[in-house]
Amino acid sequence: MTAGSDIGVGLVGYKFMGKAHSNAYRQVARFFDIEPVPKMAAICGRDEAAVREAADVLGWESCETDYRSLIEREDIELVDIASSGDTHHEFALAALEAGKHVLCEKPLANTLSEAREMAEAARKAETVAMVCHNYRRVPAVQLAKKLIEDGRLGEIRHWRAAYLQDWLLDPEAPLSWRLRKETGGAGPLADLGSHLIDLAHFLVGPIIEVVGTAETFVKERPLESGDGVGDVTVNDAAAFLARFECGAIGTFEVSPLVAGRKAKESFEINGSNGSLVFDLERMNELQVHFVDEEPEMSGFRTVLVTEPEHPYMKGWWPPGHIIGYEHTFVHTIKDLLDGIKTGKSPQPTFEDGYRCQAVIDAVERSVESREWTTPAVVYETKADRSGGGMGSEAAKGCM
Amino acid sequence: MTAGSDIGVGLVGYKFMGKAHSNAYRQVARFFDIEPVPKMAAICGRDEAAVREAADVLGWESCETDYRSLIEREDIELVDIASSGDTHHEFALAALEAGKHVLCEKPLANTLSEAREMAEAARKAETVAMVCHNYRRVPAVQLAKKLIEDGRLGEIRHWRAAYLQDWLLDPEAPLSWRLRKETGGAGPLADLGSHLIDLAHFLVGPIIEVVGTAETFVKERPLESGDGVGDVTVNDAAAFLARFECGAIGTFEVSPLVAGRKAKESFEINGSNGSLVFDLERMNELQVHFVDEEPEMSGFRTVLVTEPEHPYMKGWWPPGHIIGYEHTFVHTIKDLLDGIKTGKSPQPTFEDGYRCQAVIDAVERSVESREWTTPAVVYETKADRSGGGMGSEAAKGCM
Amino acid sequence: MTAGSDIGVGLVGYKFMGKAHSNAYRQVARFFDIEPVPKMAAICGRDEAAVREAADVLGWESCETDYRSLIEREDIELVDIASSGDTHHEFALAALEAGKHVLCEKPLANTLSEAREMAEAARKAETVAMVCHNYRRVPAVQLAKKLIEDGRLGEIRHWRAAYLQDWLLDPEAPLSWRLRKETGGAGPLADLGSHLIDLAHFLVGPIIEVVGTAETFVKERPLESGDGVGDVTVNDAAAFLARFECGAIGTFEVSPLVAGRKAKESFEINGSNGSLVFDLERMNELQVHFVDEEPEMSGFRTVLVTEPEHPYMKGWWPPGHIIGYEHTFVHTIKDLLDGIKTGKSPQPTFEDGYRCQAVIDAVERSVESREWTTPAVVYETKADRSGGGMGSEAAKGCM
Amino acid sequence: MTAGSDIGVGLVGYKFMGKAHSNAYRQVARFFDIEPVPKMAAICGRDEAAVREAADVLGWESCETDYRSLIEREDIELVDIASSGDTHHEFALAALEAGKHVLCEKPLANTLSEAREMAEAARKAETVAMVCHNYRRVPAVQLAKKLIEDGRLGEIRHWRAAYLQDWLLDPEAPLSWRLRKETGGAGPLADLGSHLIDLAHFLVGPIIEVVGTAETFVKERPLESGDGVGDVTVNDAAAFLARFECGAIGTFEVSPLVAGRKAKESFEINGSNGSLVFDLERMNELQVHFVDEEPEMSGFRTVLVTEPEHPYMKGWWPPGHIIGYEHTFVHTIKDLLDGIKTGKSPQPTFEDGYRCQAVIDAVERSVESREWTTPAVVYETKADRSGGGMGSEAAKGCM
Repeated sequence: MTAGSDIGVGLVGYKFMGKAHSNAYRQVARFFDIEPVPKMAAICGRDEAAVREAADVLGWESCETDYRSLIEREDIELVDIASSGDTHHEFALAALEAGKHVLCEKPLANTLSEAREMAEAARKAETVAMVCHNYRRVPAVQLAKKLIEDGRLGEIRHWRAAYLQDWLLDPEAPLSWRLRKETGGAGPLADLGSHLIDLAHFLVGPIIEVVGTAETFVKERPLESGDGVGDVTVNDAAAFLARFECGAIGTFEVSPLVAGRKAKESFEINGSNGSLVFDLERMNELQVHFVDEEPEMSGFRTVLVTEPEHPYMKGWWPPGHIIGYEHTFVHTIKDLLDGIKTGKSPQPTFEDGYRCQAVIDAVERSVESREWTTPAVVYETKADRSGGGMGSEAAKGCM
Repeated sequence: MTAGSDIGVGLVGYKFMGKAHSNAYRQVARFFDIEPVPKMAAICGRDEAAVREAADVLGWESCETDYRSLIEREDIELVDIASSGDTHHEFALAALEAGKHVLCEKPLANTLSEAREMAEAARKAETVAMVCHNYRRVPAVQLAKKLIEDGRLGEIRHWRAAYLQDWLLDPEAPLSWRLRKETGGAGPLADLGSHLIDLAHFLVGPIIEVVGTAETFVKERPLESGDGVGDVTVNDAAAFLARFECGAIGTFEVSPLVAGRKAKESFEINGSNGSLVFDLERMNELQVHFVDEEPEMSGFRTVLVTEPEHPYMKGWWPPGHIIGYEHTFVHTIKDLLDGIKTGKSPQPTFEDGYRCQAVIDAVERSVESREWTTPAVVYETKADRSGGGMGSEAAKGCM
Repeated sequence: MTAGSDIGVGLVGYKFMGKAHSNAYRQVARFFDIEPVPKMAAICGRDEAAVREAADVLGWESCETDYRSLIEREDIELVDIASSGDTHHEFALAALEAGKHVLCEKPLANTLSEAREMAEAARKAETVAMVCHNYRRVPAVQLAKKLIEDGRLGEIRHWRAAYLQDWLLDPEAPLSWRLRKETGGAGPLADLGSHLIDLAHFLVGPIIEVVGTAETFVKERPLESGDGVGDVTVNDAAAFLARFECGAIGTFEVSPLVAGRKAKESFEINGSNGSLVFDLERMNELQVHFVDEEPEMSGFRTVLVTEPEHPYMKGWWPPGHIIGYEHTFVHTIKDLLDGIKTGKSPQPTFEDGYRCQAVIDAVERSVESREWTTPAVVYETKADRSGGGMGSEAAKGCM
Repeated sequence: MTAGSDIGVGLVGYKFMGKAHSNAYRQVARFFDIEPVPKMAAICGRDEAAVREAADVLGWESCETDYRSLIEREDIELVDIASSGDTHHEFALAALEAGKHVLCEKPLANTLSEAREMAEAARKAETVAMVCHNYRRVPAVQLAKKLIEDGRLGEIRHWRAAYLQDWLLDPEAPLSWRLRKETGGAGPLADLGSHLIDLAHFLVGPIIEVVGTAETFVKERPLESGDGVGDVTVNDAAAFLARFECGAIGTFEVSPLVAGRKAKESFEINGSNGSLVFDLERMNELQVHFVDEEPEMSGFRTVLVTEPEHPYMKGWWPPGHIIGYEHTFVHTIKDLLDGIKTGKSPQPTFEDGYRCQAVIDAVERSVESREWTTPAVVYETKADRSGGGMGSEAAKGCM
């Protein structure tokens, strides 16, 4: 943690995600040997009193109330956008334009065209740009990735995933901005679905076709003002089928109206040689099965992903001593900083973010058209190919 | 078990299902107080030596090698059809024609038009006709039904179900009749899918629209003769979305190529007031959650469905002493005999069997057309309505 | 099932165990290729009307009201004692004396001296004598045995087991004979504890020392007559530590006053090379872990013990289709009949039953003396050694 | 976090526990509204280079190499002792003598007489003294405590607990100081057992009698120097029975030689009205069962202890987003700071630490004497009684 290798960070947003990102900046150098070390220069929000208090509580040296001032600051090299989805486009373009590195919360944008512009800007920029899909950095998910890449599952055939919560089950839960089309974009399909789609892209590869259905089960809710009710204008639940480029079939479902489920983000992957099961509510575990096990002793194994051999776990505690939700952000920031050091944007890049958005967009169109729909794809260049990773494999056409 | 209340039974088929049904006839009066008591008059199969041995091992008094002879016998009042799907239509029509009660294995038929004729014949018959969807008679499933009927789950919104097995995962597994279109009908979609669809109809109500996708992952397999390979002409895996009449959204998936899954028939149902989860591999358990639990102590409860208060369980063992797969057939036969006593066909009736077939058919058409597809429906008469049950609720048009 | 190989069976007892044993005799030849085939000649009980009805319901050809008459019958070669524990000694001695094969329910006797006489009688007899500890014949338990015998667990170090139920939790549950010292012997320590001790002997080997504690939590209960209350004169819960001959340490616990536990018979075994976990409420599963697994993929595997390769399972259903409680009796009878065929008493023999009783006795003495206590042991002869099995290993001194 | 309410902290120890405690001081004011706010003044260790680096990585303002210098510093009001067990006595007495608040890692001391002196010193001191038994501060454990205190479990009858790990399973794991009597005290019985005993005291109340057994399964190990082997002089596994003052029976087991178990600290508590089950490897969950549930829907509920209503959870993340191991230290420090504010030592006090030590000591004596043994008890004063909590209830005699 020598001063010579610091990097000034500016964070936009100070609520749920602001708190999670701040924690990651505070913690990363305490548990991992990284360089550069983040210097928590400034946090930015519109409400001056609130942002000042947040700076104090969350550990930022100063605060700003205008994102432009933040971006202009010379002591800030990395801009972290943890504000609401409708601001990502404007903030990210400005930050990239100013030559800053950018980390942007998911989903990348509220519309596909916004996402496209952001991916293009990132492509042209000479700085690092990354989307914060923190669940890629759950050690169990990284273990899953490794097993798949090593061919341990063989040819992937099935993906089934759901993200279920209950926080909107109560019809008296107020009409938040997330439930209005103009601010909440695709609603839970974007909010929860983007997590699942990003994981599917990460683990199984590009989705090439979808067909979906959706519903607004609770059609009106009390206004947040407490004065009367208003219409819910997004779908509050959705399900879709997907075909992957690799030939696999996928099912996806998102709903924040599921009684008893809190953060039930789960997936199962079946290949010709094995299967994997993950559940965020037990995020330190991965269920693993391989076909080549002794027949009499074959079954799903519960791997407690807390060994020093497991991704990221050497930085934490002895085996069996589990980690929690916020650690996934610490891992994300670690990889981001490694990327800044090497000058290469870590996955998910803005292009990956765009691809994720393209699937959300395709599902939305499919719900309306009632047809199988192809996600818009990205123009593939030679540079892409050399960039490696999922991004280039997925690319097939014109962005 | 006085002779006066006996009913002569003739069983067609002596393999897997023949063994399961025979066990049920042998066992039902040992554990339940029923009337009439089944008299295991004759078992029927084409291979005389094999059927003779089966009669001996399975406990039948005599055997027949022609189903017509079986049906003609005056000492036989109940004909149980546990032979392959392509024989159901012919055998059932003949048995009903001859004035016999009929129990027919699922799926009701190999084609929708066959199923339609069978449902019509059953409607006209004065005898009892029932489809053997044994999983309706898992005590945990009956408990689920009771909770839903009592309104404990509120408005049902989500159904997610999968039936996953691994018995066709090995590409060297031979090309059985089940994998050829002409004999196997819709393949796993019918074989496994009919179970899920029947449970969905039973628990959530009529499915009114589906869109599906399917795949043949293993395209050719060794011939059973051992001499060369042949093409698999059914889809070996399928997934579909469904909309229910009640407004719920459903996801369904079937695959016998899933590494590590043996008889993983599972479903989850979410309503506005609670949720249920079932898994056939742990069929003595039901996971239950209600919204109105104390907030601090809220969660999914694992109910061990082995109490005397639970459906059918009074007949078996003390609490905690679990039952197995074959017990579901004993329960089915118990309810069938109760139906014969009262003269009313127990559910699932042949009409229910037809409705199930109509969904399979709609999924098949959707896979081909790539469109949302409506299952063919059944003409509704006044008589239907008085018949009560799921059947009449589902009925909406012309059969 | 040719008549030439039949063996006439007479069963004493027609309640819970009578029902379970009857089922086993009815079922065994339907699912297993055995010889001789049991002929259900007679069932015996003191209440003539009740035993007559039981004969009808359970499938016995005739009935007797005096066990002596049953034993005298020439058509009966195998006497099965499923009556209450205080009758085992008298009935078994008489049956062995009369040259019959004997199956006796556990625990072998109500006192150690009774058990000793029974073991001696069995040793001298030329017939087969076996104790019905049905849980040895759970396929998952047999798999555990095989893994241990194959050395897969290495040196065994830990055994921890509990049998927990809730059927006596309600203080209004009446004062049954099981809760009176004179009829119920050691109470739950014998009733539940004998299961655990037999499994421990089977899987880990002889217990050489114990220290225990016990309690009567509910000190008086309503009389069964409904008229007033009476004292509970057995301990209704007990726990003890054990040292095994092989060097392992064991913990045991039994209680029928455990809220929420139904038939929670569970054990965990840890060796230098692996671990096993079993739970009767999920009796089709065995949790297995081996030390030599890949470090990154190491964990407890849930083996669904329903494959044809698994003990006994070839007789039943396809993989994943689970079996239940009563199947363990079918397996026991299968092995008993195999033993009769070969003329060798299957384990657990009466000597094994005696050893089990000796541990119960030692725990009872330890509870009173508050000292570590050694179970009485059995005189070892050359014949014993050739008999193989656990018996001879355990034998160390004078019976 | 105003400067006026700071409290200077000095930490002794910078390895595993030093890292966990440092994290807690860094994090507590970020997530909880506390006063005073810890000021991380100095960390202390004998190896100057190492402690200097630790200060940098872990976030301490300065470092010391002599604990006396640390204690003398006027800017330090709270001394946290996270060094090895054989140093606790000396350091704690000095710190209390100097008028500092003290937090001491568990077990309180390596011998009972040391613990007694420490408890006496704490009693006389006017500062706050607390033992760091972090698992009391798992939210699920606090929920368990609340349920018991509210009488929801009725009369407690059974406690069964084990702390199982595998880190010493490999016989090539070196002979650490923990495995030598002179430095490691009672070995795993103290290291792991103290956690279980403290939880038992916390949840069930005083232990009044124990009988135990123990073993050294791996009798020699490679020296840490790499040069030859040395004797293991502590027991590496132990089990004991306990009687609680409240009448409950307990079983305890500790072993770091259990294949497949990482941090398997688990307990089950059964009362007349309900049961609880906890497992540290799934520390965000508590299994709960109440007798008064509807009979048909009765079972163990898996409560995900992540709701804002749950202890400490309001400070962290939305429901379902789990926390990890290190959070238990944050909660401990939070409660310690609250205690400093009010001037009252939070539980577990040094007296509680002494009581824990007394049980370890009694088990050790019982292993040697092979007799039931009573833990030494604490002199009870009026002041104790007014202090409330477990301490005073347990007190019965002369310290």
